[in-house]
Amino acid sequence: MAEAAGGPIGAGRYPYFYGPEGRLVLVDSALEAVSRGSTTIGIKTAAFALLASHIKPVRPLIDPAEKIFAIDGHVGATGSGYIGDILQLIDELRLEAQKHRLNFESPIDVGSLTKHLGSFLHNYTVYAVRPQAASVIIAGVDEIGVQLYQVDPSGTFFRGSGFAIGQSADVALDVLQREYSADMSVDQAVALSNKAIVRALGERPIVEIGVVSAKDGGRFQKLH
Amino acid sequence: MAEAAGGPIGAGRYPYFYGPEGRLVLVDSALEAVSRGSTTIGIKTAAFALLASHIKPVRPLIDPAEKIFAIDGHVGATGSGYIGDILQLIDELRLEAQKHRLNFESPIDVGSLTKHLGSFLHNYTVYAVRPQAASVIIAGVDEIGVQLYQVDPSGTFFRGSGFAIGQSADVALDVLQREYSADMSVDQAVALSNKAIVRALGERPIVEIGVVSAKDGGRFQKLH
Amino acid sequence: MAEAAGGPIGAGRYPYFYGPEGRLVLVDSALEAVSRGSTTIGIKTAAFALLASHIKPVRPLIDPAEKIFAIDGHVGATGSGYIGDILQLIDELRLEAQKHRLNFESPIDVGSLTKHLGSFLHNYTVYAVRPQAASVIIAGVDEIGVQLYQVDPSGTFFRGSGFAIGQSADVALDVLQREYSADMSVDQAVALSNKAIVRALGERPIVEIGVVSAKDGGRFQKLH
Amino acid sequence: MAEAAGGPIGAGRYPYFYGPEGRLVLVDSALEAVSRGSTTIGIKTAAFALLASHIKPVRPLIDPAEKIFAIDGHVGATGSGYIGDILQLIDELRLEAQKHRLNFESPIDVGSLTKHLGSFLHNYTVYAVRPQAASVIIAGVDEIGVQLYQVDPSGTFFRGSGFAIGQSADVALDVLQREYSADMSVDQAVALSNKAIVRALGERPIVEIGVVSAKDGGRFQKLH
Amino acid sequence: MAEAAGGPIGAGRYPYFYGPEGRLVLVDSALEAVSRGSTTIGIKTAAFALLASHIKPVRPLIDPAEKIFAIDGHVGATGSGYIGDILQLIDELRLEAQKHRLNFESPIDVGSLTKHLGSFLHNYTVYAVRPQAASVIIAGVDEIGVQLYQVDPSGTFFRGSGFAIGQSADVALDVLQREYSADMSVDQAVALSNKAIVRALGERPIVEIGVVSAKDGGRFQKLH
Amino acid sequence: MAEAAGGPIGAGRYPYFYGPEGRLVLVDSALEAVSRGSTTIGIKTAAFALLASHIKPVRPLIDPAEKIFAIDGHVGATGSGYIGDILQLIDELRLEAQKHRLNFESPIDVGSLTKHLGSFLHNYTVYAVRPQAASVIIAGVDEIGVQLYQVDPSGTFFRGSGFAIGQSADVALDVLQREYSADMSVDQAVALSNKAIVRALGERPIVEIGVVSAKDGGRFQKLH
Amino acid sequence: MAEAAGGPIGAGRYPYFYGPEGRLVLVDSALEAVSRGSTTIGIKTAAFALLASHIKPVRPLIDPAEKIFAIDGHVGATGSGYIGDILQLIDELRLEAQKHRLNFESPIDVGSLTKHLGSFLHNYTVYAVRPQAASVIIAGVDEIGVQLYQVDPSGTFFRGSGFAIGQSADVALDVLQREYSADMSVDQAVALSNKAIVRALGERPIVEIGVVSAKDGGRFQKLH
Repeated sequence: MAEAAGGPIGAGRYPYFYGPEGRLVLVDSALEAVSRGSTTIGIKTAAFALLASHIKPVRPLIDPAEKIFAIDGHVGATGSGYIGDILQLIDELRLEAQKHRLNFESPIDVGSLTKHLGSFLHNYTVYAVRPQAASVIIAGVDEIGVQLYQVDPSGTFFRGSGFAIGQSADVALDVLQREYSADMSVDQAVALSNKAIVRALGERPIVEIGVVSAKDGGRFQKLH
Repeated sequence: MAEAAGGPIGAGRYPYFYGPEGRLVLVDSALEAVSRGSTTIGIKTAAFALLASHIKPVRPLIDPAEKIFAIDGHVGATGSGYIGDILQLIDELRLEAQKHRLNFESPIDVGSLTKHLGSFLHNYTVYAVRPQAASVIIAGVDEIGVQLYQVDPSGTFFRGSGFAIGQSADVALDVLQREYSADMSVDQAVALSNKAIVRALGERPIVEIGVVSAKDGGRFQKLH
Repeated sequence: MAEAAGGPIGAGRYPYFYGPEGRLVLVDSALEAVSRGSTTIGIKTAAFALLASHIKPVRPLIDPAEKIFAIDGHVGATGSGYIGDILQLIDELRLEAQKHRLNFESPIDVGSLTKHLGSFLHNYTVYAVRPQAASVIIAGVDEIGVQLYQVDPSGTFFRGSGFAIGQSADVALDVLQREYSADMSVDQAVALSNKAIVRALGERPIVEIGVVSAKDGGRFQKLH
Repeated sequence: MAEAAGGPIGAGRYPYFYGPEGRLVLVDSALEAVSRGSTTIGIKTAAFALLASHIKPVRPLIDPAEKIFAIDGHVGATGSGYIGDILQLIDELRLEAQKHRLNFESPIDVGSLTKHLGSFLHNYTVYAVRPQAASVIIAGVDEIGVQLYQVDPSGTFFRGSGFAIGQSADVALDVLQREYSADMSVDQAVALSNKAIVRALGERPIVEIGVVSAKDGGRFQKLH
Repeated sequence: MAEAAGGPIGAGRYPYFYGPEGRLVLVDSALEAVSRGSTTIGIKTAAFALLASHIKPVRPLIDPAEKIFAIDGHVGATGSGYIGDILQLIDELRLEAQKHRLNFESPIDVGSLTKHLGSFLHNYTVYAVRPQAASVIIAGVDEIGVQLYQVDPSGTFFRGSGFAIGQSADVALDVLQREYSADMSVDQAVALSNKAIVRALGERPIVEIGVVSAKDGGRFQKLH
Repeated sequence: MAEAAGGPIGAGRYPYFYGPEGRLVLVDSALEAVSRGSTTIGIKTAAFALLASHIKPVRPLIDPAEKIFAIDGHVGATGSGYIGDILQLIDELRLEAQKHRLNFESPIDVGSLTKHLGSFLHNYTVYAVRPQAASVIIAGVDEIGVQLYQVDPSGTFFRGSGFAIGQSADVALDVLQREYSADMSVDQAVALSNKAIVRALGERPIVEIGVVSAKDGGRFQKLH
Repeated sequence: MAEAAGGPIGAGRYPYFYGPEGRLVLVDSALEAVSRGSTTIGIKTAAFALLASHIKPVRPLIDPAEKIFAIDGHVGATGSGYIGDILQLIDELRLEAQKHRLNFESPIDVGSLTKHLGSFLHNYTVYAVRPQAASVIIAGVDEIGVQLYQVDPSGTFFRGSGFAIGQSADVALDVLQREYSADMSVDQAVALSNKAIVRALGERPIVEIGVVSAKDGGRFQKLH
């Protein structure tokens, strides 16, 4: 039997979950969807973390969708990908944060919250369901300090000082990396995130922004 | 193995849930069905919200189907797409509103009601069932004021002052956007929604209308 | 990959539940089966509602199948499509009517009964089971007055004064629409339904008839 | 995409349960199997009902299989199709008859028993299981009088005075219809059923026979 | 793709359970496997029943597999097909016989035991599991007398005085039928079964034999 | 439709569980995997049973995998095929032996233990799961004496004095059969098993060996 | 039917779980993914065990992912493959270690912990879920001494003194094998693992390292 003939044999060799070279085909599709989502930025310094998301232009009478979400007093999140999927993940984050407060009478640390979301997303890659098509950036302040994480559809997560997801995320990340400074102010970070989104999209976009600072009790708040 | 050869390999690369470019193939099909549904309009000002739906002409002895539904005293909804799917979603909205009254002894706020419907619809996109082929517009009055939302088969929802779904929704939305005025009266809004539907369909249609006003105790009522 | 090449890609684009243009492929198949069923008529005036169904000619020693069914004292129903499916739906209607009597100690209103059947049928379009291949016409008298409804395999239902389902339903419906009169007598309605079935089938058929009248206590009864 | 191009698109258009023209493909296969089963006859007059089934010739040392089954004191049944399927249906009939006796302390009426079997068979056409490949003829005496029913794999059932199922059932039914007489004796009915089976098969077969008479307490008994 | 060419359309027309002409494709495969199993014989007279099974030659150091199994004191069984399947069926028979003793404090009659196995096997033909690839011959003595049954993968069973299953069963059965005598002794039956197996296989095989006699308390015993 | 046209029709004729000639396709695949496993030997005399398994050469810093497993004090086992599958079967054997000790306060007899493993493996051939790709040889001493069994992926088991499984098992079995002697010593059996493995593999392999003797309390022990 | 014709017949012969030659196709895909993961090393002497994993270069503002994980005080682990899968396996290891402490009030031995992970991974190869795409190396100290294990997606595990997994693992393993010395110091082992990773990747990588030593209470600790 000529394996090179491809077609159905290929279907036999790479069934459902895995594609050529062991790739997770459904997760790759989910990532393709994320790469078409709103350009979204996360920036962190020792003093604060900022989330900024491009708000896709909507027709005149439609309110722009909320893209920056408060998860708990000390944590906020944003995402890029299918809105329905993002909303489900935001709900999951809020639920986990509330559960932690109920069980331990203290705010959840940002790392545990992120890990929970990663595990929640990973589950969708193991069974015959649809992996969620959304990457999420989480910003918060806990006992360790200011925290910024990115979580992807595969359940993988990263910690860092600058993330970009969604459309032309590479372009936006380049801007962040060239111009990031560890001692920038919130205003400078807002300007940087705007600049990164403008470069990525080649137009002046509407951007929604949320910030959490180490001082001021570490409360996540949206900027107007 | 030549991936360009397509066919079954493609089937391997884009299985069940996702299509090329990470699109949700079943949700796209559901949206195609919605785009063939009755042209349906939502208009909101600070004073009132109005729902208007084209009633598809039926044969002489058949009563036109109800398209505007009271959900609770302060909320109404309409939809476009498969009637069986719309009816199920209307039932879900009514049930959720009643549950809220039982649990909290107060009317549900329109945003929570909408979010519940979005989450209900999102669930159908994750498992091996049929995503519902219906978009819904919800109008109501709560403590925040007059509210208007649109929910799509993916579970995504929007807040706004003017929505159009169903056949030639783009044409109808253009009319709304050009002629919408934030201080229009209910009569003017009725006229505008009629005009938008006429433009979309190129004929004088039967239209069913429901309105909820901030004054008068915020009661959703069908006109005539 | 050339999407126009069709075949398996098409299979990828339009999986199980949906076909081209967002059509519900299994429901379309069910409707095809209904369009090959017995020609069946419903006629309603303010005074009565009548159900008439062509009894397909059977071989000499076989009794013609019952096609007009009493559901409860005040309601009757008939259907067209696969007999096994019709019988299941009739059972479901009877059960729902009995449940209502037990729970509320009053006869069910015809609209609620119809809506229940619509929701029952809709469920079969969402999961990986077979949508039922039967349309049903329901006739009854309740507090609102004389009622006539048609329910389709998708769960969609219509209220009206004249319905035709099954083989050449369009031809039969044309006859009804041209000759229907709101003040016709039961005898005239019987004659009209016979005429419509004869036109549809081009032959003199056996017809089973059931009637429910506003007076006489609103009891559904088969004629002869 | 050209729908006429067929192949896999066809597979998309007519999935699992339905074939072209809305046919139930698995039920059609079950009926094909029935049409290769033993030729089996049911005859009813006001005085008695008779079941006669061709016993397929077996090799010398093998006892012919039982084809006529007592279900309850007043009811018997026979079937044609796959023997394993027939036996399951016979068990189901016996169980239902016993349940009725336990619950109501009276023999089940033949119509209810038949309807139960129809509903039992219908269930196999809705889910992803194998529809049963057997038609059954039921004969009994109850308060209404002598009863004869045929039930098919789809769950459809018929009431009548003469039925034939299995191999060349059409030929056998022709004989029954030409020579049936409403005042024939049991002996004449035995002769008629033999003649019908001989015509259908073109050979002198072994036939097993069971009879239930209105008089004599209405006891179903096999003839030797 | 030309629909007449068959292929995928065919796959659509004859799904999973049924093949062309309504054949049970998985059961046919199971029967093919049985027809490659050990040639196995059952012989019954009024005085005794005998089971004889060819023991396939094994390599020198491997003990021949047991093919004749005691089920209960008064019943034995043998089978042909996949050994794993046969062993499961033997276990099921033993369990059923023990359950009967526990519930009724009497030995199970051979007909009920056989019917139970038939129903157990039939179940595997209805759901998406593997029909068992084994035919079984059961020999026993109960109140009715000496009993011999054959059960097939479809759940069909036969009663008789001479059965042959497995490889070249037709040849073996011919021998049995020509030389069977209702008053033969056990020794003559052993000789006859050996002769039938030799004819079927064209070689001198090892044969395992078990016998149950009406006298001697009706105890099933293996011969050496 | 021409059945000879093959392809998808073939797929229709031989679905999932069965292949041409009624073969169990998944079990055949499992056996193919076993035939690529380590060459493994079992030898039994009245005085002792020995298990010997080729240890596949591993890279310098990797310890050779254990291939001979103690199951209970009086029983040991080895296997060939996928290591993950073998380990699961070894666990199952140990669990069953411990359960027996707990329930009956006595060591399990080797035949019952083997039968349990056969039934455990058979289950994987009936449902839509993966049949285990491992053959197992079990050696033990119980009240009957020294015992040696082989169990295959289908759940079939054999009793004997010499078994070989895995790569070139036929060659190894030939050596065993030619040179086996019922009164050989343990040392002679070790030499014979080594010789058989050398012949099968054409090289001097590492071999792990375990022995259980009738005397010395019948304790299974690995050599060295 | 020509089996050589391939295509769909092949699909019939090698369904879902198994490919040609009995290979586990999904596990092979998982292994392909592992072979593209970070190059990861394990080294053991009698005095200590060391884990070293290449940290894939990330963009400037992203913290390198943790690759060396403490499982319990006396055990650490690392992995190569999909990060989401690795994280799930690390969680499973931690959970199992904690369960052991709770149940037995003592640290788990490294062999039992490894065996548990192997069994956990094996389960994913038996049912219709996705086998995990990660190999794991476990290092620890228990009563037996210093321990080093590798576990693969199939559930197979190995014990040894030097392992390499991930990209160009063969090259890295060659370096280990040539230069390993049983009396090397921790510093020498760090240098050796670095050298092996450099050779494998042809560049100077970032490497994360963890060590557990027999002395010092056997505490697993990350270096620096």
